[in-house]
Amino acid sequence: MTSERDFISSLRRLAADPAARGLADDAAVLEVGGTSLVLTHDMIVEGVHFLAGDPPEDVAWKAVAVNLSDLAAKGATPLGLLMGYSLGGDPAWDEAFVAGLGRVLADFKVALLGGDTVSAAPGGGRCIGVTAIGTASAPVVSRSGARAGDDLWVSGTIGDAGAGLRIARGALAGSPRLIDRYRRPLPRLAAGAALAPLAHAMMDISDGLLIDAGRMAEASGLAVTIDLSLIPLSDELVAAGGEGRAARLEAATAGDDYELLLAAPPSLGEALRARGFEPPLTRVGRFDAGSGVILRDRSEAVPLPARLGFEHDK
Amino acid sequence: MTSERDFISSLRRLAADPAARGLADDAAVLEVGGTSLVLTHDMIVEGVHFLAGDPPEDVAWKAVAVNLSDLAAKGATPLGLLMGYSLGGDPAWDEAFVAGLGRVLADFKVALLGGDTVSAAPGGGRCIGVTAIGTASAPVVSRSGARAGDDLWVSGTIGDAGAGLRIARGALAGSPRLIDRYRRPLPRLAAGAALAPLAHAMMDISDGLLIDAGRMAEASGLAVTIDLSLIPLSDELVAAGGEGRAARLEAATAGDDYELLLAAPPSLGEALRARGFEPPLTRVGRFDAGSGVILRDRSEAVPLPARLGFEHDK
Repeated sequence: MTSERDFISSLRRLAADPAARGLADDAAVLEVGGTSLVLTHDMIVEGVHFLAGDPPEDVAWKAVAVNLSDLAAKGATPLGLLMGYSLGGDPAWDEAFVAGLGRVLADFKVALLGGDTVSAAPGGGRCIGVTAIGTASAPVVSRSGARAGDDLWVSGTIGDAGAGLRIARGALAGSPRLIDRYRRPLPRLAAGAALAPLAHAMMDISDGLLIDAGRMAEASGLAVTIDLSLIPLSDELVAAGGEGRAARLEAATAGDDYELLLAAPPSLGEALRARGFEPPLTRVGRFDAGSGVILRDRSEAVPLPARLGFEHDK
Repeated sequence: MTSERDFISSLRRLAADPAARGLADDAAVLEVGGTSLVLTHDMIVEGVHFLAGDPPEDVAWKAVAVNLSDLAAKGATPLGLLMGYSLGGDPAWDEAFVAGLGRVLADFKVALLGGDTVSAAPGGGRCIGVTAIGTASAPVVSRSGARAGDDLWVSGTIGDAGAGLRIARGALAGSPRLIDRYRRPLPRLAAGAALAPLAHAMMDISDGLLIDAGRMAEASGLAVTIDLSLIPLSDELVAAGGEGRAARLEAATAGDDYELLLAAPPSLGEALRARGFEPPLTRVGRFDAGSGVILRDRSEAVPLPARLGFEHDK
């Protein structure tokens, strides 16, 4: 065993239950007494996913929000959370963390159900694990159901969080609203629940639009073509970095968007025009027979960048 | 905020949902579509709960078993697990961990449903969080339902794991079976499911018989009297440390037993004689009006030791 990829392959062999979805979806889906339960667990580590100097309120927000985003990606309504938390020896940090936790729980009307509080490893950073559980309508949408001819849609705007991280690091000048998008992502719970019955496949974008669309295409046994010119950019992102091809490639390969990515038949466009939708949805590509990610800028073919997004596995 | 206790008090204010049981029970209990779901999450940290030199197979076993023990304490049947795992940069360790994980999942017929694999904090230890979910018959037994006149029962034998830890550290000579009891506890799933409908209150013993019995008494608004002479000791424990009062006090205040602790009316004794039971159950005390833990050795009053068990909060 030589890498995270090998480790996860080994885990997959232990996760033969269909509810595990091969550890390849955003969440597990367990059918219990006629109810579809959706379960997800994400862990964040100090020095890896956040820094001790980050605002603790925002660390709490993000730990919860990324899990709720996985529920949103399956169209699930949250029932509650469990949290494992390692105390780092700084009561003021912990107190601010709890304040942020209270805020994100209240904002998304989610209950804290249980968990565990432990000491952090001596000399090591904090470790925070959140498990979210929700219910969804069966059949629960997967990331593998896209069909040839489906359109690829995204919610909201793409690339804001990536730019926000660069601004927080002093590598870019721009609006603090972009930093907010990085530190306090908004899980698309209402949109996910409304779109799940209309989508053939759905997931959230956590590692980058290109890499995540590629994963949906691979899981569905299809090719996906993405038109860079269609990718929705926020006014703040355009103000910070423009909207040229380089800026669009940067946005499409940045992580932490936590927007929805879905495959749906062309009729979705008519449904959206009839109903309106918040956040807005934008068609950015299309699925066809074949494999891989194909990039265009209007009518022009664009070579794939070396890096499509963050490569770590789920 | 100055301590773990304060932190948990703050969390309790956020956990107002009745499903959270005030963060004071072994698990959360969520009613979904006529099914009672039981959910628990425990986190273990290298350098705190285990050492890098411990056998990784056993670390995996214990991470899973302590969560299954919480399900057993609520009479729940497991549906599956989610795991958050931080890679520590030693692929052989990870490989052995997965082997141990496979073994405990197979032994208890539990499915791995999902989770997250991340990198450990730079310079820090591994962090492993396990969430277990199960179903139980309603009403799900709590630790607060003991009634005056109930007997206090324990499953199996008490103190083996504590002695095993001392043997593993070289502080005691004794049977390697005691080390097994420390490193590979056996969650009492079948016994828990069978006993839940007969018990007024049930929990598992993780921090020590005296401290955990005291928690059940406090949650139930009662006093509990424990007779040291009745505490069941294994032959291996007696061989290593004798069965005098000091040995019994040591056993009653050692942690990691993961046996069941229950309050039940005197009729439980007759039911057990009629059915037999594996592991054996032993009556060790009784609940009465009042508060606190009262210790006896047959007819003789025994002063409470300064430490009743491990004091860290849940």
